[in-house]
Amino acid sequence: MKITVLGCGRWGSFLAWYHGQNHEIRLWGRETSRGYQELKQTGKNQYVVLPDSVVMTSDLADAISFADVIVISIGAQHLRELAVQVNEYPVQNKTFILCMKGLESDTGKRLTEVFKEEVKQPVRVAVWVGPGHVQDFTNRIPNCMVVDSDDRETVSFIVDQLNSDLIRLYRGNDLIGTEVGAAAKNVIGIAAGMLDGKGLSSLKGALMARGAREVARLIRAMGGNELSAYGLCHLGDYEATLFSPHSHNRRFGENYIQGKEYGELAEGVPTVQALVRLGEEFQVDLPICKTVYDILYLNADGDKALKALFMRSVKGEFDT
Amino acid sequence: MKITVLGCGRWGSFLAWYHGQNHEIRLWGRETSRGYQELKQTGKNQYVVLPDSVVMTSDLADAISFADVIVISIGAQHLRELAVQVNEYPVQNKTFILCMKGLESDTGKRLTEVFKEEVKQPVRVAVWVGPGHVQDFTNRIPNCMVVDSDDRETVSFIVDQLNSDLIRLYRGNDLIGTEVGAAAKNVIGIAAGMLDGKGLSSLKGALMARGAREVARLIRAMGGNELSAYGLCHLGDYEATLFSPHSHNRRFGENYIQGKEYGELAEGVPTVQALVRLGEEFQVDLPICKTVYDILYLNADGDKALKALFMRSVKGEFDT
Repeated sequence: MKITVLGCGRWGSFLAWYHGQNHEIRLWGRETSRGYQELKQTGKNQYVVLPDSVVMTSDLADAISFADVIVISIGAQHLRELAVQVNEYPVQNKTFILCMKGLESDTGKRLTEVFKEEVKQPVRVAVWVGPGHVQDFTNRIPNCMVVDSDDRETVSFIVDQLNSDLIRLYRGNDLIGTEVGAAAKNVIGIAAGMLDGKGLSSLKGALMARGAREVARLIRAMGGNELSAYGLCHLGDYEATLFSPHSHNRRFGENYIQGKEYGELAEGVPTVQALVRLGEEFQVDLPICKTVYDILYLNADGDKALKALFMRSVKGEFDT
Repeated sequence: MKITVLGCGRWGSFLAWYHGQNHEIRLWGRETSRGYQELKQTGKNQYVVLPDSVVMTSDLADAISFADVIVISIGAQHLRELAVQVNEYPVQNKTFILCMKGLESDTGKRLTEVFKEEVKQPVRVAVWVGPGHVQDFTNRIPNCMVVDSDDRETVSFIVDQLNSDLIRLYRGNDLIGTEVGAAAKNVIGIAAGMLDGKGLSSLKGALMARGAREVARLIRAMGGNELSAYGLCHLGDYEATLFSPHSHNRRFGENYIQGKEYGELAEGVPTVQALVRLGEEFQVDLPICKTVYDILYLNADGDKALKALFMRSVKGEFDT
């Protein structure tokens, strides 16, 4: 099969490597991107050495016409812009797989919603999310991920074609829950880093239980299945996000709360804006998201806000 | 208030220290136990220095008559034997709080069931479980725990009297789920250690999602609320159990799978027998518990069994 991957970051380059084991690949990036240039010039980056089956291109027309299956892995806030460009080419009946996690910060929209708003041709769209460190996969350590879509046939097609012993794919059947859960785990990851930064790592247990709970309530209010918060898309990704020293969101939260330099923004930073917006829209109390938001955007005192989070008034565990 | 604590292990001595901040305490242990002797002779152990409010005793009659609230923290498989002894004294209307996690291995019975079978007088019985490292609490790092009982008044009484800024108590309202969830987390902890021991730590993400899922299904089949598996009693305790180097069950699993000496048995070892029994009785598929059981009791090959666990045939994530 021919597969195109759009995006040359950690996951984009990994997915080109992964699919390149069995398929012909075009890997597209912007000519000006550092990630693209490194892969183009050296055939590798710090994560992967690209196999011969992967051909680099910065020509979007070429990348899109090459394959019927197109994997997208870019920053979530740039998806709308890319989708506008994609729509300039004939893509009717192609399958797009969004291997990315986030919500549009200004609107709270899910990524498949954003994509379909801009790609006005009939296409098939799915998400592919869940746990797994790129560094582990390239060392042949397997993991489980989940594929979801509002079209069951698309899910089956992707799982049947792209499942392997390295990435065991589960079939999701709750697109709302899978997308919101995957996006929200980055925010819980920032909260975990903040606890680490304050010497409160042992509260990450309560964070897991309470965090998954509030995300479950939001998913339910949005019309999804609350159990999705407890699946691979969200809870299943907690190991990689809340506990790994490599997790970008966790590290961001740890550095931020300690007043250290944190480099580029983590994906959870725009996502938490979207979640707080959704909480208001659907009238769901999201104390952990709100605390992260208050610390990041409203200059709330970290110590006080984090402790208040777990020391709220006594109540039943599943009351709300 | 006067409170008696039965048991001089890590949690028993900690609970005497904790309640001793505000109450008069009798801390009971067997004259022959090393834990008792160390505390009796030195007033401390590696975890706590007992405050003056704590008086040691090895006289069970004295310990029981001293207080109306009696906290029990001993090995789960010894509870029936202790309950028989307790029943020899007048304990009518006293409140017993079981701060322990497990199921009776031979019968699959919950600890409150075991206790009530042997204590034939009318008493109030609750459990007190959830996350928190003793070492963190004594360093004044707070956490959340959950109290549950089939008697709502008992839950309210305990939470109102014993809540603090250090241990924030939540009210549970699903005794079956809370007890089964708390017991089962030790088994998931052993599985986590086995993954660590095989260099498969990144599968602990999938282990969390799949582990909580199978425990939720068992709880539901037993008549409890499946959400309890995702609460403080089970998921909320995963940080302390699946990720901490101090977790006894995790360390046991890691050493066992590597063929190393592992010292005393971990609590999850008898518990997994009970869980496999309950899975058969209630006809619930428990692949993670069964795998741990097969490795510990049936000499199954660890590598093969662990990989098979996560590489089962493709299916929907919430199918069963």
